[in-house]
Amino acid sequence: MNIFQWNQLTESEKADLLERPAKQRSESTRKTVSGIIQDVMLRGDHALREYSERFDHVSLDELQVSRSELDEALASIDSATRRALDIAIANIEQFHQAQLSGPVQIETMPGVICQRLSRPIERIGIYAPGGSAPLPSTVLMASIPARLAGCPLRILCTPPRTDGSIDPVILATAQLTGIEEVFKVGGAQAIAAMAYGTPSIPKVDKIVGPGNAWVTEAKLQVSQDPQGAAFDMPAGPSEVLVIADDSTNPDFVAADLLAQAEHGPDSQSIALCTSDQSAEAILSAVNAQKAKLSRQNILEQSLQYCRIIICQDLAEAFDISNLYAPEHLILPFESADTWLDKIVNAGSVFLGPWSPESVGDYASGTNHVLPTYGYARAYSGLSVDAFVKHITVQNLSRQGLQQLGPHVEQLASVEGLDAHRLAVSVRLQKIQGELKT
Amino acid sequence: MNIFQWNQLTESEKADLLERPAKQRSESTRKTVSGIIQDVMLRGDHALREYSERFDHVSLDELQVSRSELDEALASIDSATRRALDIAIANIEQFHQAQLSGPVQIETMPGVICQRLSRPIERIGIYAPGGSAPLPSTVLMASIPARLAGCPLRILCTPPRTDGSIDPVILATAQLTGIEEVFKVGGAQAIAAMAYGTPSIPKVDKIVGPGNAWVTEAKLQVSQDPQGAAFDMPAGPSEVLVIADDSTNPDFVAADLLAQAEHGPDSQSIALCTSDQSAEAILSAVNAQKAKLSRQNILEQSLQYCRIIICQDLAEAFDISNLYAPEHLILPFESADTWLDKIVNAGSVFLGPWSPESVGDYASGTNHVLPTYGYARAYSGLSVDAFVKHITVQNLSRQGLQQLGPHVEQLASVEGLDAHRLAVSVRLQKIQGELKT
Repeated sequence: MNIFQWNQLTESEKADLLERPAKQRSESTRKTVSGIIQDVMLRGDHALREYSERFDHVSLDELQVSRSELDEALASIDSATRRALDIAIANIEQFHQAQLSGPVQIETMPGVICQRLSRPIERIGIYAPGGSAPLPSTVLMASIPARLAGCPLRILCTPPRTDGSIDPVILATAQLTGIEEVFKVGGAQAIAAMAYGTPSIPKVDKIVGPGNAWVTEAKLQVSQDPQGAAFDMPAGPSEVLVIADDSTNPDFVAADLLAQAEHGPDSQSIALCTSDQSAEAILSAVNAQKAKLSRQNILEQSLQYCRIIICQDLAEAFDISNLYAPEHLILPFESADTWLDKIVNAGSVFLGPWSPESVGDYASGTNHVLPTYGYARAYSGLSVDAFVKHITVQNLSRQGLQQLGPHVEQLASVEGLDAHRLAVSVRLQKIQGELKT
Repeated sequence: MNIFQWNQLTESEKADLLERPAKQRSESTRKTVSGIIQDVMLRGDHALREYSERFDHVSLDELQVSRSELDEALASIDSATRRALDIAIANIEQFHQAQLSGPVQIETMPGVICQRLSRPIERIGIYAPGGSAPLPSTVLMASIPARLAGCPLRILCTPPRTDGSIDPVILATAQLTGIEEVFKVGGAQAIAAMAYGTPSIPKVDKIVGPGNAWVTEAKLQVSQDPQGAAFDMPAGPSEVLVIADDSTNPDFVAADLLAQAEHGPDSQSIALCTSDQSAEAILSAVNAQKAKLSRQNILEQSLQYCRIIICQDLAEAFDISNLYAPEHLILPFESADTWLDKIVNAGSVFLGPWSPESVGDYASGTNHVLPTYGYARAYSGLSVDAFVKHITVQNLSRQGLQQLGPHVEQLASVEGLDAHRLAVSVRLQKIQGELKT
């Protein structure tokens, strides 16, 4: 973890500094995942059970979580967690509800009516990774917008623990957000099962949710097969960029950098500040806070990707931020909202000293599934939009076609498409015939 | 081209009947394209010029279309074409303008304000294929929404003709829709150039527009590289499904089937009707009209994928249509709008006898870049949405964090993320300290 002076760097040093930790899509991962997908397509639940024995070290009779397991899980969670989940759900629902857009209808010419309608995607598969601790927030962020969008089928796959159970907080969160079908399947095999269906697991049209390299590879592969399933967005390691002015509390910046760094060994944290003093204060605060945290092993690795960069002024800092296109952009200083117009590329923005990234990760109302790795230049975070399709509609009256038709015939002729022209002509002739009789 | 009785088919025959023409992503295409991309990244404009000599049979000095070429093109187009383009542009602008959504702002809890803002994607690359006839409509459909979304950089790549020129209608359409930077580059090399930039061609963030198998493969490959460019949607051969009731004019159905079939040898046309008489009448009309058309060779091939299916009633026809998820769905009968609620999966819908697909292909106002090959189950057609990103924002007051913070701390603890918890705690402690002093 080092401090850099931006204007003393060469162009190539600047580029290196904003380089993400390498993300390699290895040929061996590609082949392994492709094999797993083929196997699940061929052998269905049998394959899933075998992978569970191999990877999760558990032998499962039933892949689906039973009604009684669901009921017990919901009854078992403590009241503080239940209350926190309820508040998170209420906030996320409110913000995502406000994103739902109504139909559009326009008469572009007299007698030419164009509409745009929304339809929920019919079948949604959510993946929640396993690991050392349960991640109920993943379920919140995928499940709530899918329900609000009106997707009729919403299922969850998550790897079983070695005793064959699923963490009760995950099961409770699923139920609290309207998911009743939960399956004990993880990894690339879960993605394959949802993309193609098995006797136990229904086929879905789209898969959302984070995962490790195998899961990510599997999502990519099934999305390239028209018979497979679409996916939410390309994924990379999580990252944060914090911009501090000289009044910013360095403890806040340090905590935000560390919160990012604890995600995984390849998470990246960048702080941009405007003075040497500020940079030194942030560095000291990181070191002081780091000692108190539990995930030392992960922090040790990810903090090597952490940089503190001293900029000339805030304007330069925002230029650098737009170049980097961070997943999370934290502006923990007063009047941060006056800089909003300057922000071009970012996933989610946290304004002012009292808005740490953690609030958005869990409960402010925004979604935490966001474009990483520079994808914020062209992608948006997860929203209800990801769970609906827009269908356009046009409805022409006789008069509408009489006005527009000749121009369509002209353009079809320019493109050398006779039959396109004929589809208009045959109708205009009919109208003329009707007028004569 | 055959007539089938739906309820006399087995389940597997039904599935076969709705099978698309095979779309293979061959290993050799994958490798060739990957080689071209590497080459363009390495050798830039030199590589582009060599590919132009090899594939377009022309030696180019300047890759960019000059100011005088642009001016001459605009001056050269005939008045009927110019008038048709102007009307198409006005209609497409109106309908796409209506799709622009404003910012969303919600106070999810007292002191917790969440916003969603739109930002145009900064750099857009449009690809327009070459071939026997120019396709100005491709330019219309990509360029207009990109301009309305406010994307600051919009460029067009299209392959040169053997004399080194670009069709004037393409150049005129580009200018009429606000594109001034046009490059004489086609194929996978054009996609590579836009994804990574060359000395002549600026790098873009997203590439839109149709193309052949090499172009499609190149779009896929560059989209998988975080340093590359996003793309519009997965592509397959174009297709139409027409539903006819017994009153539908068979000439209209036949013309719509043929308009689809003339696109290419793998285009698919399906008609669903509700009586033997209707099926026979459509078949006769197709044969009668076919004889008059010019693209006999393409029609000969694509009509093998054309099917006429007799259903029990319209309700069953709509079920089949939703199963197929057609790119274009034509309902050329009266009161077709009463069936709109039944439509779940479709790209664009054409209501009533006077709305042939051709009007949407060119000028009604809707976009003709639509999800093919069953992708309509999870994807939407091109719209202004494809050219913007949504950035979420949260702004908490002291009071907001005091209310929400403890619940975030609780959820962070459940997930075992200390530093996420700390980023809230360090702020709450500060607030408490301030209250004490």
